[in-house]
Amino acid sequence: MKGPRRAHARFDEAGAVALFSRHFSRISGPAVALGIGDDAAVLLPPGSPLVVTVDASVEGTHFERSLLGLEDVGARAFEAALSDLAAMGARPLAALSALTLPRGFTPRELERLTRGQASASRRCRCPVIGGNVAKGPALSLTTVALGLAQRPLTRSGAKLGDDCWLVGEVGLAAAGLALLRQKSRRRSLHLARCIDAWRRPEALLARGLALESLAHAAIDVSDGLAGDAGRLASASGCRLLLEEAPLRRALPRALVVAAAELGRDPLELALSGGEDYALVAAGPAARKPRWARRIGRFTRGRGGYLERADGSRVPLGFGFDHFEP
Amino acid sequence: MKGPRRAHARFDEAGAVALFSRHFSRISGPAVALGIGDDAAVLLPPGSPLVVTVDASVEGTHFERSLLGLEDVGARAFEAALSDLAAMGARPLAALSALTLPRGFTPRELERLTRGQASASRRCRCPVIGGNVAKGPALSLTTVALGLAQRPLTRSGAKLGDDCWLVGEVGLAAAGLALLRQKSRRRSLHLARCIDAWRRPEALLARGLALESLAHAAIDVSDGLAGDAGRLASASGCRLLLEEAPLRRALPRALVVAAAELGRDPLELALSGGEDYALVAAGPAARKPRWARRIGRFTRGRGGYLERADGSRVPLGFGFDHFEP
Repeated sequence: MKGPRRAHARFDEAGAVALFSRHFSRISGPAVALGIGDDAAVLLPPGSPLVVTVDASVEGTHFERSLLGLEDVGARAFEAALSDLAAMGARPLAALSALTLPRGFTPRELERLTRGQASASRRCRCPVIGGNVAKGPALSLTTVALGLAQRPLTRSGAKLGDDCWLVGEVGLAAAGLALLRQKSRRRSLHLARCIDAWRRPEALLARGLALESLAHAAIDVSDGLAGDAGRLASASGCRLLLEEAPLRRALPRALVVAAAELGRDPLELALSGGEDYALVAAGPAARKPRWARRIGRFTRGRGGYLERADGSRVPLGFGFDHFEP
Repeated sequence: MKGPRRAHARFDEAGAVALFSRHFSRISGPAVALGIGDDAAVLLPPGSPLVVTVDASVEGTHFERSLLGLEDVGARAFEAALSDLAAMGARPLAALSALTLPRGFTPRELERLTRGQASASRRCRCPVIGGNVAKGPALSLTTVALGLAQRPLTRSGAKLGDDCWLVGEVGLAAAGLALLRQKSRRRSLHLARCIDAWRRPEALLARGLALESLAHAAIDVSDGLAGDAGRLASASGCRLLLEEAPLRRALPRALVVAAAELGRDPLELALSGGEDYALVAAGPAARKPRWARRIGRFTRGRGGYLERADGSRVPLGFGFDHFEP
């Protein structure tokens, strides 16, 4: 846990350690030998493979404070990082938080931000054991997540003939963000659910753990269903066929209502929207758990396609990321 | 290893993974079960306690590109994070790199940055196994370092009567930065050494490992000798007495020459300057290794003082960080 250089200090190391300790020390774990306050944190030797990931949430890129309270910003950044553990079928062990705070960021604002992180840390049963605070031009939260998995679930394990499973919802967060941007006055339970999905996503940790023994491969949906499922197919050397009919059936009512309000196709929102932190997995039909929905299959070949009811196929290109000028 | 949101993409996930893989995959370690390219990296179960730290290097706060090449920026950020492992007496296991890249940052610039990180990764024998790339308003590098230590060396273990040891040099980097800022034309081997110390610090990993079995406590000097040694004393519930005479004798010739050039007191540069990433340790006189220099002692009481040759004591307050308005 280190503080900022003196020249730019507003929160010094002692202050940041005190604040972090206050919020994060109540949430501990059996593996934590040394938490916040030293040069580094120490974990007891873990008995199974260690899964490690780092994820950044940067103001202006991943969130805008005009649309999101600071508690949401903190919780959301934490859940996004933990979602990578869910996708690996890993049980959370501990997290570290590196914050960059803009000039003028007040202790009260920092308090709200860390309160959001702490609430997600509690929900995920994942103690924050260290971190870093630095001054910078924009607010950013970089979260390190460590987890344990006896047999980590990679992206590359899908087998020919596997079904494509969707766990959780997709498209709600994208619809929620679009609703917020459009400053729509209309409010309904359905629309509120979309906005909540964007503001307060939850990493599907229990589902990920359960998938570890059922699925061959998994990925979390942060950049859009089409893109992320396509990445899984590509890493596994398969072709992805998303089937329109079961996918449409899997869309939640709230998404259909929100899409109508936005004048958009709910399927397009589902395919291109990320940040719900749903999981996509590949597994044999016989092992599909009831809470996963079959939305397609992996076949011989390359690329990703949406298979229409009439059997025609549309490339899923729009969901894939690419170098933009 | 995740890429940026599409709306701000210039380096997409695939591009960043390819670049990271090219630079970092040649440096591997026996513990790495899964490296760059999935939702998270996987390490084999380590047999000893795991030491984890995260450190950020933000443009405008920790470095200016006008004074530092991008390879230096990359190497320096990496060594700074690894220095926390050195201070814990930990052997490097693996690292992750989360980059924030400003608009207009070119693939060639990213290449130089990662080349610097890779060179430090090789020097430290610490493979980079994952990371994150995001767009943001300024260049920043957040480095996660994982290490192993049978008996991690904390800040809080100093005992009454322990000597204060300095391992490595202090003040050179501060002098080097001041020389660069002053745009001094004079160049000599001594001045060049100071500038090098600031541009290319090296984490004292082997020394840290050796200290693990000799010292009672350690900290790395990133914010200045007075402040960091004071933090060690404070965490250990001791008073720190830095002794002027042995401390002056420990100052390298290059620092004395640079201080003269700058019109400053070399002792003041040594006390207040950080970023050399020296180590300060507390240990019993009988166990001092020859490469550590005794510069003071830990006694009953609180706070930190510089003890003059005549026995008078000056509070070391100026080296401690504090809330600034």
